[in-house]
This record gives sequence, structure tokens and C-alpha cells, in this order.
Amino acid sequence: MSLLSKTIDAISPQDAAVRGQATERLGQLIMPHWAMGQLMDLAVDLAGMTSSMKPALSRRTVVTMAGDHGVAAEGVSAYPAEVTPQMVMGIVAEMATINAMAKVTGTDVVVADLGVAADLSEVAAAGKIIDKKIAHGTANIATGPAMTRVQAIQAIEAGIEIANDLADNVDIFGTGDMGIANTTPSTAIVAVLTGESVADVTGRGTGIDDAQLANKIAVVEKAIAVNKPNPDDALDVLAKVGGFEIGGIAGLILAAAAQKKPVVVDGFISTAGALIAHALSPGAGDYIIAAHRSVERGHRAMHTQLGKEPLLDLNMRLGEGTGAALAMTLVEAAGRLLSDVATFDEAHVCEAE
Amino acid sequence: MSLLSKTIDAISPQDAAVRGQATERLGQLIMPHWAMGQLMDLAVDLAGMTSSMKPALSRRTVVTMAGDHGVAAEGVSAYPAEVTPQMVMGIVAEMATINAMAKVTGTDVVVADLGVAADLSEVAAAGKIIDKKIAHGTANIATGPAMTRVQAIQAIEAGIEIANDLADNVDIFGTGDMGIANTTPSTAIVAVLTGESVADVTGRGTGIDDAQLANKIAVVEKAIAVNKPNPDDALDVLAKVGGFEIGGIAGLILAAAAQKKPVVVDGFISTAGALIAHALSPGAGDYIIAAHRSVERGHRAMHTQLGKEPLLDLNMRLGEGTGAALAMTLVEAAGRLLSDVATFDEAHVCEAE
Repeated sequence: MSLLSKTIDAISPQDAAVRGQATERLGQLIMPHWAMGQLMDLAVDLAGMTSSMKPALSRRTVVTMAGDHGVAAEGVSAYPAEVTPQMVMGIVAEMATINAMAKVTGTDVVVADLGVAADLSEVAAAGKIIDKKIAHGTANIATGPAMTRVQAIQAIEAGIEIANDLADNVDIFGTGDMGIANTTPSTAIVAVLTGESVADVTGRGTGIDDAQLANKIAVVEKAIAVNKPNPDDALDVLAKVGGFEIGGIAGLILAAAAQKKPVVVDGFISTAGALIAHALSPGAGDYIIAAHRSVERGHRAMHTQLGKEPLLDLNMRLGEGTGAALAMTLVEAAGRLLSDVATFDEAHVCEAE
Repeated sequence: MSLLSKTIDAISPQDAAVRGQATERLGQLIMPHWAMGQLMDLAVDLAGMTSSMKPALSRRTVVTMAGDHGVAAEGVSAYPAEVTPQMVMGIVAEMATINAMAKVTGTDVVVADLGVAADLSEVAAAGKIIDKKIAHGTANIATGPAMTRVQAIQAIEAGIEIANDLADNVDIFGTGDMGIANTTPSTAIVAVLTGESVADVTGRGTGIDDAQLANKIAVVEKAIAVNKPNPDDALDVLAKVGGFEIGGIAGLILAAAAQKKPVVVDGFISTAGALIAHALSPGAGDYIIAAHRSVERGHRAMHTQLGKEPLLDLNMRLGEGTGAALAMTLVEAAGRLLSDVATFDEAHVCEAE
């Protein structure tokens, strides 16, 4: 059996018994009923994911998956493709935003090359990034498939391998991405998998103007028309209009679910990966925490499809895993509602009349 | 000159020059323009508040102000007034939600008794709470003023004293409250100071049913009709329909502004205190960070009045300073955008084409 099949087979729903125990305890805490709102819902999820009333959450790692995109040639991004390897080096040098956000929340950052169109072998050999390069960027989805079906499976399995190699030292995963033009394949994925119109889910990415936006919509529509991805076959969608890092993110999410660990999913590109993971194994959704709602227009449709309410909504649109890193503190806070707060009985406080 | 007058006189606007420098640097960071959204706006504010491009934010203290309310006799709360001192003891024993949330974000918690209707002298003598008790609870605002004008000034000055005593060891303040029935005076304050109808700003507090909500609206309307607070005189509003802890919160905010330090304002009761502070000194608004939007119905009108967009919106309605403690991490993150992230030039990354 393939690593992908094995991983999907290992995914089981959240532990209903522990969810019930958590719900009961949280209802008894010294506060008005459920007064910490969404963090209490999350606390129940954490208990269910980990089968524990004191979920381990202290060892946090965001994996930032990098890849390039042939579709960048269509003028869909405000930045040139050279920025992808430059930003990988920026993260390795701890000069990037993800490094700063991760520092604030006690989160480790791991960078993986899934398909950067540059030679990163030196930095990989130095152990500073994980080398899972499948190719030097995808092909241009406006004219044909991004990758072969075999490569799509390879990308997902690379993400699984990364998560499995990290498993012994990680309690909670976060996803991140780096790849110029990667909102374009992500837009194609959300359009295909949710059935929303391309115009309704296409945003400005790194910051394109109205004319570039109209071009981007046309490019995504063309990519879908040319490739005809089958919405009932997530591997076909990933292969035809996806990206290597998006496949890697999907794999990381599937592996986290198989490990029964929470995975905090970052922004638009990461959530495109989550849509692929969810389509391959709806049960993986039980382990997904939506970090934030980005400015990117199609993000809301993704969260609706996944049935997730994001924790943050701060007009962010950066990626790299920045939202996932920031949300780690809120996830820890949810966990501490279970482990650190007393009940009315324990604290001898009067309950509601 | 009184401490209150001196404090108000010491408040000056944010440093426009440093705001300008911060805006320029943030616009050059290795990310699409302003891609961290609201956190970048906050970073500019932090620079302006502290006159520093590397705002000090590591020493964080939430001050939870406790007080009781005569209006509890009108059946406006789901909980009996005995819960106020019980919860003070719960926080002192580090069993409460604020303790857990503060631990997650590296925040100290200080509890102050502004007017709890119980003898807390023993725990005050042991140095576990700050004793600024003005009276054993306010009078019932449904039948007369909550307190005298002298007491209103005393409450605000108590908050100022607390902030000034802590000043040498605190970079950033947070506000918090504990007091059964305190959403009722807070509702009266927001109705009077914003001109919104009482029905539009009255919420369910700790969790009352429809009949109790109708009663609460009637009680707030009666309190305003009986006392006729002057909306152009914030001290009159505080004295007639406020609370001791609300005055203390207002004082803490004024003192933070005078110290040129950011103050993270928690939920509905804390924001009522912020409305009083803002009415006394509109310049104090320059130092206010809105932590979160609570479930409490009138909270939105308060934020509109203050011109603030809260950082979090998690269906919380607990108080104690829990939202302020949680938001500390986001404030630190904003600060680190200024201090930790490289510019395009520094990192040799290509800018947008």
C-alpha cells in the first residue's frame, strides 16, 4: 500500500468520549456558561483530536513549503519568480515575517523545498531546508497540467514524510507557503472544488491592479477550461491546476490527522492544500484549525467548504505560515481552559441562580 | 492641581514623526505592501505611542479592577453578588481564566479592590490585592446615583495611582474587571455617551433569559431617567450610573496615556471605562488598543465611539481582562514587525515590478 493510502487509512474521527468529557468540564468552569466562546469550542476539538483532557501543545512547528509556478509567466503576480528562492533564503536567515511571528509564539519554523525553480542544494546540504524538490516549478496551467498525477502523489507524500519525520518532536503542526504566483493555482482549486465562479474567488494576491486582476481571472478560467480537472478527483485537481507546495501542505495535513495531532492551517494557499486533503479524506477535517481569514477573496468559500471558523481576521495576506504561527497562542489558550481553570466545585464559587 | 487634572494635562498625542518613520519602514519590509494588515496599523500606533521604532512591550500587566453594584438587587444578573469576592479570591489563588490566559501570553495579573461589598482586608494586608476600596459597592442606580461626584474622582484617581505605582515595571498595561451586575452600569454609560437607545446596547451579560433582558433594559432606562446623567460631563455619568471599578479602569487608561504607554482595553466593562477616559481626555484614545469584540450587544457602539477596530472576535463575554491578556501576543507581534523583519534592501530581495 502506498504511503498516501496508508496515511489516509490511519485517519479516524475525533474521540467522541473525550469530547464529551471536555464539554462537561468546560461547562463547569468558574465563568458564565461557555463565556470564552470560540476558544471553548476549540478546546473541545483539541480534547477530541488528542484523546486527552490536557492536550499537549507546547512543541509547535510551522512547516513552510516552497514551490514555483509556471503560470507566473502569465503576469498573474506583482512579483517576479526570483522572489521565491530569495524569500526562502530570507526565512533561512531568520529575516522574514514568519520568523518574527514564530518567535512571538514559541513556534519552530521548518522550510521545505517542494519545487522551487532554483538550485537550493547548498542550503539543503547544510541542513537548513528540507529537500523534497519534485521539479523546478510546475508547468504553466494556462496551457496544460501543472504536473503529472505521479508528481501530485509525490508532492503529497513529501508532505507526509516531512510530518512523519518531525512527529517525535511536534505536538501541533502549522502550515505555511512560499511561492510567487501561488494564489493562482489556489484560486483554481477553490473554484473547482467548491463550484464557485472564478470571478467570485479570485483576489489580488500580493497586490495586483484591476487590469491584472481581470487577466488573472481569465488565466484561471483558461486553466480550468484547458485542463478540465475532475472535481470528484482531488489528485486530478492538484495535478492539473495545483502546485507542488500545495500538495506538500495537503500531505502535512493528512499526516497530522493520522498522528491525531492538530494542524493549524494558515491562509489562502494553505487552505487550498486543506481542500485537497479534505477531498482525499474528509476525516482529516477533524484535525484542522483555521488560523485566520485573509484578505484574499476566495478564502471565505474555502472555510465554508471545510466548515471552519477562523480564529483571526486581521486583513492579512502574507502567507509563509504567519497566521498559523500567530494563532498558536490562541490554540494554547484554548488548551489551558481545559488544564488550568478551576470548576465551581473546585473553587467553591456560587453558580448561576 | 488634582491628580486627575495633572494626569489629563500630561497626555499628549502620539509622536507624528516616529509614526511617519514607522510607516516608511513597514512599507519596505520583505512582504507585499502592508500584507500584515491590521498588525501593521497597530505597529505604527505602537511607534507613535512610545516614540520608538523598537517599542518596549515585554513587561505586561493586566490590572483587574473589582467592584460591586447596588443595582444587582434589581435582578439584572444571573449570578448573586457573593460571586464578586469569590472570584477575587479565585484570581488570587490563580484558579481563574484570567490567570490561565495571562500565563499563555507572559502577562502579570494584578487585582485591585475598588469597591467590593465584602471585607477583603486580610488578602489586601497579605499583599495579594491592591486595596483601593471606596465603598462596599455602589448604591442602586435604579433609585439614585451610584456614588457621589467626589467618589467618582476618587475611583479614577485610584486607577491612576495603581498605574503610577506600577509604572517602573510595566511597558504595556491591560485592563480587566470583576463585578457582578457590572454590565448594567456599563450599558447605561454607553447609552448616555453614544446616544444609542438602551434597547440597542443592552446584552445578556453573564447569561440572562428574555424576561430578565427585558427587565434589565427597563432598569437601565429607569437609572437614566431617575439620575439624568449629563452626557457632556463624564464625571457626572460615572457618578450617577457608573461603578467604582469602571472609574478605576478609566483612571488606569488615563495614566497609561500620560505615561505614553499602550493600554489594551478588554471587553464591555473595560470599554465603558475607556469611554469615560476618552470623554475626559479625547487624547487618551491615542494610547488605547481594543483587545476584542465581545458578544455583549453594546460593545460595537463603544468601539465605534472610540474609533477602534478590535484585534479579536471570538464570541467571548467573560471579562476579568481575559481578552486583554490574549491580545498581548498580537501586540507583541505588531511590535516585532518593526524590530525583527528585514527590508527589501537589507535582505536583497526583489521588489514588486
